[in-house]
Amino acid sequence: MAEQKKMVAEITSMEEDFAKWYTDVVKKAELIGYTSVKGCMAIRPYGYAIWENMVSLLDSAFKKTGHKNVCMPMFIPESLLNKEKDHVEGFAPEVAWVTHGGNEPLEERMCVRPTSETLFCDYYANTIQSYRDLPQLLNQWVSVVRWEKTTRPFLRSREFLWQEGHTIHETAEEAIAETEQMLNVYADFFENSLAIPVVKGLKTDKEKFAGAEKTYTIEALMHDGKALQSGTSHYFGDGFAKAFGIQFLGRDNKLHHPFQTSWGTTTRMIGAVIMAHGDNNGLVLPPAIAPVQVIVLPIAQHKEGVLEKANEIKERISAFCRADIDDSDNSPGWKFSQYEMKGVPLRLEIGPKDIENNQCVLVRRDTREKYFVSLDELETKIPELLKAVHDGLYNACLERRERMTYVARTLEELKDIADNKPGFIKAMWCGDVECENALKEQAGVTSRCIPFEQECLDENCVVCGKKAKHMLYWGKAY
Amino acid sequence: MAEQKKMVAEITSMEEDFAKWYTDVVKKAELIGYTSVKGCMAIRPYGYAIWENMVSLLDSAFKKTGHKNVCMPMFIPESLLNKEKDHVEGFAPEVAWVTHGGNEPLEERMCVRPTSETLFCDYYANTIQSYRDLPQLLNQWVSVVRWEKTTRPFLRSREFLWQEGHTIHETAEEAIAETEQMLNVYADFFENSLAIPVVKGLKTDKEKFAGAEKTYTIEALMHDGKALQSGTSHYFGDGFAKAFGIQFLGRDNKLHHPFQTSWGTTTRMIGAVIMAHGDNNGLVLPPAIAPVQVIVLPIAQHKEGVLEKANEIKERISAFCRADIDDSDNSPGWKFSQYEMKGVPLRLEIGPKDIENNQCVLVRRDTREKYFVSLDELETKIPELLKAVHDGLYNACLERRERMTYVARTLEELKDIADNKPGFIKAMWCGDVECENALKEQAGVTSRCIPFEQECLDENCVVCGKKAKHMLYWGKAY
Repeated sequence: MAEQKKMVAEITSMEEDFAKWYTDVVKKAELIGYTSVKGCMAIRPYGYAIWENMVSLLDSAFKKTGHKNVCMPMFIPESLLNKEKDHVEGFAPEVAWVTHGGNEPLEERMCVRPTSETLFCDYYANTIQSYRDLPQLLNQWVSVVRWEKTTRPFLRSREFLWQEGHTIHETAEEAIAETEQMLNVYADFFENSLAIPVVKGLKTDKEKFAGAEKTYTIEALMHDGKALQSGTSHYFGDGFAKAFGIQFLGRDNKLHHPFQTSWGTTTRMIGAVIMAHGDNNGLVLPPAIAPVQVIVLPIAQHKEGVLEKANEIKERISAFCRADIDDSDNSPGWKFSQYEMKGVPLRLEIGPKDIENNQCVLVRRDTREKYFVSLDELETKIPELLKAVHDGLYNACLERRERMTYVARTLEELKDIADNKPGFIKAMWCGDVECENALKEQAGVTSRCIPFEQECLDENCVVCGKKAKHMLYWGKAY
Repeated sequence: MAEQKKMVAEITSMEEDFAKWYTDVVKKAELIGYTSVKGCMAIRPYGYAIWENMVSLLDSAFKKTGHKNVCMPMFIPESLLNKEKDHVEGFAPEVAWVTHGGNEPLEERMCVRPTSETLFCDYYANTIQSYRDLPQLLNQWVSVVRWEKTTRPFLRSREFLWQEGHTIHETAEEAIAETEQMLNVYADFFENSLAIPVVKGLKTDKEKFAGAEKTYTIEALMHDGKALQSGTSHYFGDGFAKAFGIQFLGRDNKLHHPFQTSWGTTTRMIGAVIMAHGDNNGLVLPPAIAPVQVIVLPIAQHKEGVLEKANEIKERISAFCRADIDDSDNSPGWKFSQYEMKGVPLRLEIGPKDIENNQCVLVRRDTREKYFVSLDELETKIPELLKAVHDGLYNACLERRERMTYVARTLEELKDIADNKPGFIKAMWCGDVECENALKEQAGVTSRCIPFEQECLDENCVVCGKKAKHMLYWGKAY
């Protein structure tokens, strides 16, 4: 246990300094490597394997709902970016500009895509003639660049990986249904794969995406009570279509502007997993996205038959889970800490005594509970325990969110909660941006979303006292 | 057949104008879409689905050989690019430079990666301490940018998608073995998945990668007799390690420089498939990478039971192949042309008469041969025919390459072949770059590779008459 304590002592405790804890986990779990490219990440094999699992699950959900992948250029000529007014105002201040190709200055400078609405519009304008060409349900997995001043691995970096879905439809109703469908795909992924409960809702006008009519969002609560915007889905109406001159010949033989959506999730989801499930021993990974679901650790591996048995078990369970074995000459204590740090959901220990008793020891990462399991039952017990880890993580998150969600009925009450109790604050709002700005200034919180599940906490706006339109979630956010 | 002829008439024949034929296929098969970003591609769903199949097969081959995926930043600060002399000289003239972030000029300009050796070196320098940290077997799937003056879809574009493997080893022998192993992985992929035979060999010093000690290559011959460099694998020795100060504590307790490799294939492989297998009816896809392997076409689909049966067959064969159905109201003739254009390996026709006889018609895309197949035998006949298409494509390519490979024993002979007979030219070479340059000037051909399979055609160099060192493949290249 001495070694284990030493290892654990190497990371800052989250109660002491959450930001430092986060950075320690990101480094010690080998998710991110050093790079001399300021504000950018080098995603290491273990971090990237988590991303690959996320991509694989989301991509198949996109394909099941009829979407196809494409790849647009990474550059946007300045004149193209400028075509939609709100959009360019939102993004131009934070793009990276390419001005030279080799030794020659470019005729027109281009930015590296911060998002690709303009490129998809350019593409649609040339591929859509009639209603028969609609809908187009597209997606791409690429990286984008936003020139952030302060950066943190996975949460906010100058380059990040993401998927951006872009769709275009004959009617507004169809486009809105798509926007909502994709928000639900995201919410299902968070709850069923990442074991993170989310609040689904609509962004206020102030917080919506540049150029969107409506932005839907899923919001998750982290260990420290801060909110993380975890996925967004935008409905554009026909604003982009008008700005880019996209038209189709309708069933009525007249020209119409089609309706668009876009929706995205990013490597930020890795940050969400770290901050939702991690603990003072390191990362805790939900089984669905864990690169290794079960780590097999031979105990007293120099003893006859142990390594053979451990390898045999690893091969056998690889038929139904992602398993690995560590037969290095590091001590068991070191290995326990190491795979706790890496968040492997289940540890399987097998030593001479276990072999004698035809059993092994399974240890859950989330609760550290130990189970003595007969070797004849691995095929049923391991999937059961993986499911138990998932459910345990989900329920712990949900319980925490409920515990850290507060109701404020007056401005004073809201300020007091904001100052002293990290978490979500539910409060009524009149719909005016002035009241939204006032809360930012006076309480340091921003509106997270207008949740789909509305409650009437009070008749009036918590700020101005006028008639309230919505119940809102407020919070401090990453 | 009238419609079919009309459709076919829409593309230029390859005998008339090969370049125009290529562009027609790329557009009509809906691989590439219009974009106003000069020299860049918008890869459409059908083109991207081909790429996804390539990625999936190659990625699993990489993982089987122990490689793990990562993601390095897309930007390279100028000072980092400048660290290895040969490398920067090779790439600096063709990179895109980012000079501004938002409205602020950058302190140091950065290029968009043209390739990532410098970024991996930066990463290695910080993650490698001892021989225990070696080897590192990494790969990434990203896009890169090279500011080409003239561009063609898939073959040469300013941005293209690729994978770049980067590995670092304790010994030179191990690194060379890795370089050769990955060339073989590429060659196997070309032959077994893309149905394209390749010549494996070494690039001459003049043609090798900037910064490499050795560049291995696979070279394929296209329909028009031009060569396509199709994948390369580079051995760097310890040159990069020295330039970047990468050292490890060896088993002898002394500091050493490790040895590196890199290897890459790109979306250019899609160009190779088009130009190796395509014909005057459009694309012809090898089954392993075809997004749709069997297209089910109901005939006289208004007749009772036809659509039901066609859908039933489509569902049934989807268990063992990638199948789709076209039950649109377009005519059968239009559909025949459409799926020929898209290169679908097998067409399955099913009409009222077929149903009566418990059979269907299967038509091979490559030879247009028709097979009447009992509906009871689809599970065996379809895989057999898909294999036959693969073998047919491979053998046709091989036969063509052999027919278009010439031997030149004198300079006059070589010039005559270069002028009149498109294809590979085998000729002896003394090893001097002067003779290589002379052939470029006098015959317009470049050295493709020093093939592993050497033959002695003659004692002397075809240019200078001095003692020959190697037999070389020469050709005109894309």
